[in-house]
Amino acid sequence: MSKCKYELTVDLGNRSYPIYIGEDIHADAEYYRRHVPGSQVMVVTNETVAPLYLEQTLSALKSFNVSTVVLPDGEVYKTLDELNKIFTALLESRFSRQCTLVALGGGVIGDMAGFAAACYQRGVSFIQVPTTLLSQVDSSVGGKTGVNHPLGKNMIGAFYQPLAVLADTETLTTLDNRQLAAGLAEVIKYGLIADTEFFDWLEREMDDLVARDQEKLATAIERSCRCKAAVVAADEKEAGQRALLNLGHTFGHAIETGMGYGEWLHGEAVAAGMCMAADLSLRLGWISELELERTRTLVARAGLPTDPPAEMSEESFLSLMSVDKKVLDGKLRLVLLQGIGKASVTDGFCMEKLSETLTEYGR
Amino acid sequence: MSKCKYELTVDLGNRSYPIYIGEDIHADAEYYRRHVPGSQVMVVTNETVAPLYLEQTLSALKSFNVSTVVLPDGEVYKTLDELNKIFTALLESRFSRQCTLVALGGGVIGDMAGFAAACYQRGVSFIQVPTTLLSQVDSSVGGKTGVNHPLGKNMIGAFYQPLAVLADTETLTTLDNRQLAAGLAEVIKYGLIADTEFFDWLEREMDDLVARDQEKLATAIERSCRCKAAVVAADEKEAGQRALLNLGHTFGHAIETGMGYGEWLHGEAVAAGMCMAADLSLRLGWISELELERTRTLVARAGLPTDPPAEMSEESFLSLMSVDKKVLDGKLRLVLLQGIGKASVTDGFCMEKLSETLTEYGR
Repeated sequence: MSKCKYELTVDLGNRSYPIYIGEDIHADAEYYRRHVPGSQVMVVTNETVAPLYLEQTLSALKSFNVSTVVLPDGEVYKTLDELNKIFTALLESRFSRQCTLVALGGGVIGDMAGFAAACYQRGVSFIQVPTTLLSQVDSSVGGKTGVNHPLGKNMIGAFYQPLAVLADTETLTTLDNRQLAAGLAEVIKYGLIADTEFFDWLEREMDDLVARDQEKLATAIERSCRCKAAVVAADEKEAGQRALLNLGHTFGHAIETGMGYGEWLHGEAVAAGMCMAADLSLRLGWISELELERTRTLVARAGLPTDPPAEMSEESFLSLMSVDKKVLDGKLRLVLLQGIGKASVTDGFCMEKLSETLTEYGR
Repeated sequence: MSKCKYELTVDLGNRSYPIYIGEDIHADAEYYRRHVPGSQVMVVTNETVAPLYLEQTLSALKSFNVSTVVLPDGEVYKTLDELNKIFTALLESRFSRQCTLVALGGGVIGDMAGFAAACYQRGVSFIQVPTTLLSQVDSSVGGKTGVNHPLGKNMIGAFYQPLAVLADTETLTTLDNRQLAAGLAEVIKYGLIADTEFFDWLEREMDDLVARDQEKLATAIERSCRCKAAVVAADEKEAGQRALLNLGHTFGHAIETGMGYGEWLHGEAVAAGMCMAADLSLRLGWISELELERTRTLVARAGLPTDPPAEMSEESFLSLMSVDKKVLDGKLRLVLLQGIGKASVTDGFCMEKLSETLTEYGR
């Protein structure tokens, strides 16, 4: 039996679901027996994850009628065309409305399998087995699914909840260092926006997290998911409060798009974006010099960039930020810090200060 | 001011919406002012409808920031690729989450614009202006949106409700006879599954409906929408009762797919499918010879086929019917008649009787 260290529930009324966190969970048949409603299961994974974890997963699923679809790995493949391969696989297997999709992989696989589950026959079941730290702390909670469009990231999608999430810390042992750091960016984000104590804990434990201490990683995942679950439960469709989760993301998306998807990892872009948001917050007098420094230091200790790439000019930032989803009817809104552990969404900043952050920051 | 003859509400809690039925409604700015929440409006239409009604619609929308996307006409274009053109148009116009899509056209346009609205930035507003009788009585109610996949019809989609439906009987004057008849197939269906009195009324008024009497068409639309709204309100996600609306559709989809999309109109295929369902119901002893004859006669008077195409063999029917969405975990379920005005969903029929209907019917 696998070691489930934590179980927490994302509370969304009749769409509530559990997140299991621990070692070897993804290979434990018990969790699938408990949560898969029908007999047909389609495992959606990618070329990187399949050689590492597919066999164990299939073995845990051997009492079901299982098919597999293996997609290419990477954000550049998060497209409608690749999504269509999942639909083709489902139809070729003649899977009905009672089938279940299992997303075995990182955020891209989770987003695509989740969106495919939302759309296949107008909605089938879906279980998430996130295999990266980023997807364990970010996409496990919130129900955001979707694909990219050449003109914008995550522009096509749905809010769709899984039946369960199996966050296996064992799968983090095969993550490369950049991917681990990218996940830590979102972990730091939760401390910054909503949990001062957690930020303090991260300052103490960051070296062990980077060294992949399994117990401490499980704790960081649990605390992050709990933080996100609280925000999402209060605001499932992103009308207000949930926007706080976008700290660093408006700058970050601009970096990702400007550099070309895949050049900078999402978490790396968010890390630099959070430092930029903190910089703008300082320029507005909302946080202290020390708070900016603590933010930058923790980001750096996680192995993450604190500055945007030199290629990104003020013009490219502004142009790319104005197609970001956080723009409300033409007005740019940003998540900024009011302290460590406190963030707010605002369009009440003068463009000059933003301009200073965009041009001077990091040079 | 336009003449709104009927207004009815589809009751879905906080997603309830009105259907307005009458002459010249689509060109009346008042309805858009009342229901469009933001300032950005994307009209989605096709090459056939645009020359007829786009100008009037744009004129009614002149107080908004309006863009237009014109798709090719026909079921063969109800694909992910064409859907992507809507996303491209929205992104090129830099439309935000607060935008509204207006579907100006028949069922294909309604399904695609509705699905695009469901997915663009994970959900934006949507108003339906159905311009065919079929879409006025069928897609106006129920929230089914989506596109086809080469391996199956309507396999990719979402349940997504509009903010309002403007069903303009004026637009029916430019429909060709086949399209009008295709709409009458669904009108007849409502009588058959749930409303004996309405079926009697249709037997009296069919000649006037075929002659496009505006008042009587409005009455038929209202009665059909009311019938569908009652069924949908009871069962929004198609768990049970709603399946009754699929009378004739399992046979019909097989005909459409077998003949190639677009060869037979959806309504024509459903008409023959309803007669086949009635035939099987007779063979099972559920309805009388007279009830089968009344069904066939009314279908024929509407200008619709009562028999499937000669090209469709028993084998092709069976093969195509088993990928239909109505198949529950491998078991074929059909909607059959227990009388005029009463239908039920069942898998309790012997395959021999089905086989008789598939091989002998119509020869």
